[in-house]
Amino acid sequence: MSGRARNGRVVVLTGGVGGAKLVLGLCHALPAEQVTAIVNTGDDFTHLGLAVSPDIDTLLYTLSGKANAAQGWGREGETWSFMEALRTLGGKDWFLLGDGDLALHVVRTQRLRAGERLSRIIADFATAWGLGAQVLPMTDDRVATQLETDEGLLDFQDYFVRRRCEPRVRAVRFAGAETAAPGPGVIAAITDPDCRAILIAPSNPYLSVDPILAVPGVREALGQACAPVLAVSPLIGGKAVKGPTAKLMDELGVETSVVAIAEHYQGLLDGLLVDGGDAAVDLGLTHAFADTLMLTLGDRIRVAQAALQLADQVRQ
Amino acid sequence: MSGRARNGRVVVLTGGVGGAKLVLGLCHALPAEQVTAIVNTGDDFTHLGLAVSPDIDTLLYTLSGKANAAQGWGREGETWSFMEALRTLGGKDWFLLGDGDLALHVVRTQRLRAGERLSRIIADFATAWGLGAQVLPMTDDRVATQLETDEGLLDFQDYFVRRRCEPRVRAVRFAGAETAAPGPGVIAAITDPDCRAILIAPSNPYLSVDPILAVPGVREALGQACAPVLAVSPLIGGKAVKGPTAKLMDELGVETSVVAIAEHYQGLLDGLLVDGGDAAVDLGLTHAFADTLMLTLGDRIRVAQAALQLADQVRQ
Repeated sequence: MSGRARNGRVVVLTGGVGGAKLVLGLCHALPAEQVTAIVNTGDDFTHLGLAVSPDIDTLLYTLSGKANAAQGWGREGETWSFMEALRTLGGKDWFLLGDGDLALHVVRTQRLRAGERLSRIIADFATAWGLGAQVLPMTDDRVATQLETDEGLLDFQDYFVRRRCEPRVRAVRFAGAETAAPGPGVIAAITDPDCRAILIAPSNPYLSVDPILAVPGVREALGQACAPVLAVSPLIGGKAVKGPTAKLMDELGVETSVVAIAEHYQGLLDGLLVDGGDAAVDLGLTHAFADTLMLTLGDRIRVAQAALQLADQVRQ
Repeated sequence: MSGRARNGRVVVLTGGVGGAKLVLGLCHALPAEQVTAIVNTGDDFTHLGLAVSPDIDTLLYTLSGKANAAQGWGREGETWSFMEALRTLGGKDWFLLGDGDLALHVVRTQRLRAGERLSRIIADFATAWGLGAQVLPMTDDRVATQLETDEGLLDFQDYFVRRRCEPRVRAVRFAGAETAAPGPGVIAAITDPDCRAILIAPSNPYLSVDPILAVPGVREALGQACAPVLAVSPLIGGKAVKGPTAKLMDELGVETSVVAIAEHYQGLLDGLLVDGGDAAVDLGLTHAFADTLMLTLGDRIRVAQAALQLADQVRQ
């Protein structure tokens, strides 16, 4: 049973940049075909009439080797003629759409308008780019992450990109989540008896992971999963690597610490992988330490292996 | 009256490339603010979910100095990252959409979907690019040029781009024309008592000018116009400069000659500007000769001036 399980699939709940690094590491630590990513779509929005799925696309670019690693988002070798021309027309230019990047948005928009499901479209993109891993949107329904801030209610991209995370956040909402259905394959992947481990990627817990957990059925499925559920802490030495995690935790009245991360995922986790730079405190939870900063591909593989090792340890 | 008229507006019925050259010449021969282009929209189509208006865009690019003169369509200095990425997704790549060019299509599509009229959108594009000339779509309604061919009924771009004008054409149709209304300002421009001349550009009479004439009210307005109606022949030495004009005339059983052009516009014209290389035959119509090949800006201004001179001569 244990041997069988170790050859089984690994499921990752993930947001964009940070989570994509772990998924890439997993795809090298394991045959990529054994990796299933369940991806946040709470950041998805319609811009200039185009359906944009930032986290899914970051994952597609990362796994296919097309990501701009230095920039942290978008495509390597991207060109910007569209944005330049858009500016001459007085078009909204606060959200950057690269020329090559537009292909995903244009094709996705066309197919969604024709009535196709996001999950089908993303599966086709992954196939077209030869990805071994499965990339599953958390839902095919519309869930919109929104922030209650001192500037009023803001849509995610409005907050994150246009306002550069500057407004103070009082609460995070996932509009539409209560009536959303998990995407095809999401619950089956989590409850698969052959699943070796379910990992929560080191993405922002409040903005990137919580939307996935807000989809009805996902939390329950995690509770019933045969596989151990592990999180990789998004904090490194008590700080967020990138993005608004620390600022947001502060504004939500939560201490920026791995204890708070453990508490946030309370009841869900069988284990937590913690950065070596974080103090060893009582987490009330099985945990292990590793250097979780993922700058190189080697780092990503190492963190993936550490997470799998902790999973196998918890399972035994 | 004559002096007043000579300071009046000049209206041009035009398609894309060839016609745009004449309009550009007029915008240099006159204050650009005195030029009104009524543009064919029969080639407009939806590609990858984007609303594309090839003739209007060619005119916008030509008048704003953004056109790729060597290529004959699209933008100067265009990049092609979108098409490259689209191909990796297995997307339809028979119609080339340049990266910068996409800005017009994306903004137009978004605004049309929001319920705005094409004429309003194009007016805003022209304003954004500082164009003096008025660019009026022939209609805000959907008119689709279609070709009855030996391969069946083909949409214009299917015939023109995908099938490279290879199928034999039996007839040309303008689907939707019978219920289309002239775009805002179209009839007023044609019947304006201060109009100095109405020119039919040297565009393809069957594919680019006939759709405009098929919009109910346009032909009648031309008949009632105070200004003389002149055409610039699209033939040079009995041949078309570019595109399928000659092949099409042959397939429609029409001799490729300036006589046939005069007959095609029978009842509409007060004069015809003919290329110097074309035989001086009896056209039953006031005409003048000029070198109508428009390779340089100087050529374009010269042809525009020759057309205006003929108009003033006819008017007297």
